[in-house]
Amino acid sequence: MKTARLETFSDGVFAIAATLLILEVHRAGGSVAHGLVHAWPSYVAYAISFLTIGIIWVNHHTVMQQIDRVDRTFLFINVVFLMIVAFTPYPTRVLAETLRDGSKPAAFAYGLTFTLMAISYGAMWFYAARGRRLIAPDADQRVVSGISRSFAPGSIIYGAATLSSLVSAYLAVALYGAIALFYVLESSLFGRDG
Amino acid sequence: MKTARLETFSDGVFAIAATLLILEVHRAGGSVAHGLVHAWPSYVAYAISFLTIGIIWVNHHTVMQQIDRVDRTFLFINVVFLMIVAFTPYPTRVLAETLRDGSKPAAFAYGLTFTLMAISYGAMWFYAARGRRLIAPDADQRVVSGISRSFAPGSIIYGAATLSSLVSAYLAVALYGAIALFYVLESSLFGRDG
Amino acid sequence: MKTARLETFSDGVFAIAATLLILEVHRAGGSVAHGLVHAWPSYVAYAISFLTIGIIWVNHHTVMQQIDRVDRTFLFINVVFLMIVAFTPYPTRVLAETLRDGSKPAAFAYGLTFTLMAISYGAMWFYAARGRRLIAPDADQRVVSGISRSFAPGSIIYGAATLSSLVSAYLAVALYGAIALFYVLESSLFGRDG
Amino acid sequence: MKTARLETFSDGVFAIAATLLILEVHRAGGSVAHGLVHAWPSYVAYAISFLTIGIIWVNHHTVMQQIDRVDRTFLFINVVFLMIVAFTPYPTRVLAETLRDGSKPAAFAYGLTFTLMAISYGAMWFYAARGRRLIAPDADQRVVSGISRSFAPGSIIYGAATLSSLVSAYLAVALYGAIALFYVLESSLFGRDG
Repeated sequence: MKTARLETFSDGVFAIAATLLILEVHRAGGSVAHGLVHAWPSYVAYAISFLTIGIIWVNHHTVMQQIDRVDRTFLFINVVFLMIVAFTPYPTRVLAETLRDGSKPAAFAYGLTFTLMAISYGAMWFYAARGRRLIAPDADQRVVSGISRSFAPGSIIYGAATLSSLVSAYLAVALYGAIALFYVLESSLFGRDG
Repeated sequence: MKTARLETFSDGVFAIAATLLILEVHRAGGSVAHGLVHAWPSYVAYAISFLTIGIIWVNHHTVMQQIDRVDRTFLFINVVFLMIVAFTPYPTRVLAETLRDGSKPAAFAYGLTFTLMAISYGAMWFYAARGRRLIAPDADQRVVSGISRSFAPGSIIYGAATLSSLVSAYLAVALYGAIALFYVLESSLFGRDG
Repeated sequence: MKTARLETFSDGVFAIAATLLILEVHRAGGSVAHGLVHAWPSYVAYAISFLTIGIIWVNHHTVMQQIDRVDRTFLFINVVFLMIVAFTPYPTRVLAETLRDGSKPAAFAYGLTFTLMAISYGAMWFYAARGRRLIAPDADQRVVSGISRSFAPGSIIYGAATLSSLVSAYLAVALYGAIALFYVLESSLFGRDG
Repeated sequence: MKTARLETFSDGVFAIAATLLILEVHRAGGSVAHGLVHAWPSYVAYAISFLTIGIIWVNHHTVMQQIDRVDRTFLFINVVFLMIVAFTPYPTRVLAETLRDGSKPAAFAYGLTFTLMAISYGAMWFYAARGRRLIAPDADQRVVSGISRSFAPGSIIYGAATLSSLVSAYLAVALYGAIALFYVLESSLFGRDG
């Protein structure tokens, strides 16, 4: 199977999931002005989720460019990965609804989604890259190794941020936002070589 | 009419239908933690439907690669097939809302949608493949026959799982999940030759 | 401006509008089985709207293949046309909610949307085709004339069906369905030459 | 990074955001006929937002055609820009719900979204165009300068219209509509050279 078909499938899911996020944003009660201002948790959750999906979209292309063909194990991991990406609007909504109360379970579920996303994304890459199993013959080993190095800490960083929600929902959300901002800068840099 | 236009139409519907599924997932009542955990029927329904649409997407490309041109009967069957694919989020929502109660009608309606999808999908293929009516001249007959063999049991398997909902909703949902998993592995294998 | 950019814009709107229709389908009250069966007005409205958008999608490509370039008037008409296509889920929902009561205003609003769609679609085509203003130099005049002949009655047929809603909502909906079925067959035939 | 990947990402977000707008349109209370007619604020908000996103879509392609490559700063601005575009359905809904009451905060928030969109869009262009930083070597300087001239007043025009909401919500909405209509004509003209 050619990777182009997989990329089309994935691109569609990324774009739709990111744009659906806004359907979960609702103004708060009270006057119109009050409701617009006090919906800030929705805006925060929207921005973090949108940035995160946007980053994954860009990186997914860079990853797929190194890959020559896919086998059934790779395809299976990719479908599970996309299922988690498309799941994002749900924990985003729960976070938006409960962030004002500092709900730790909501912040935990939100981070858990990103952690599982990072794990399945990393699994997909390392399955392809181990022994250059699915890597294109002409792919530069330095680029391949560079991608591996940038993937390695992802799951651990998201896992740690998720655990921080047990201390404080606000701390965890601040970390999720910081990670997204870091990856916007990182992945852009990374994208330059792609 | 070229098949490329049909594939673009179909791809859009597959990606959007799969990603819209998450809008039907809602947390249950009670505390945030309780509501997140007790929304498990939504997660189950989401995962089965997402996997099923993902499988169909991949297979649709493999099928279309064997086909050279389409006529009006093929086009009509394909539109009906897509109408059923795009219908999926509705029975998925009903199943998610009622699975905790073991609602047999919901499990039946969910399976019926997949059965009708399998019938229209099979009808589309066998219409194209009979006497190689719409098959590309250079398509390998072994691949064509292989696709026919893999399609033949689809409607019967989904029909049987749907009927099992008359005994138990849980049994039926377990079967729907097992079929999706089987096809993820099967279709990937199948996709390797595509 | 090249037509490819316009087709991409249009294709996205068609696919998304058709697939969003299912979000407007809700089961009726009472038991699960009762609610599923008595949601039939939603299923009818869904099927007619899905088929109608599917037909327009296919035809739009055939039309655009005859066109070489677009100017600002053509672009303006196309944006208005797409705005009406993307509007479809709203009257579809209203029809689904009120069809059981035979609501004439809902059936009228539904048909009015299709009538306006047919008028803006026809206006777009006749603007391009008059004196072969935007027609590709190598386009066959017989195909161009054939498209013109098939477009001419569209607005009148939809207008008449819309007016029939003043007599009976059921009559009007039966006519909308019959028109969609007719165009599925017609446009497929038509598509064969495309 | 090639601009093609960025355009695909952007196109998906534009098409989905525009088509999602209809989910925010709801009929008003009372009889069906009354509810359909009195939902006019929803129709007005829908039309202005749809036209505005449609215009941006067309212009985005023209802009990207002048650009040869993107760097991380450009990518970051583009992601923020898309985040604002995808945000549009939310202030559109709030405007639709409150326009009958002439709510100034809703009209302000709606215009503020467009102002921020214009600022981020302009920032993206001027970052690329300054000293022809990211401009393709073969891009005509007259076209580049023409785009710069057409972008320059955008943020100021939207900002002024937004401020007018402090006087009257109706005035502001009339201005937003007038700006959209102006850009449909302007951008089409502009697109002709693209």
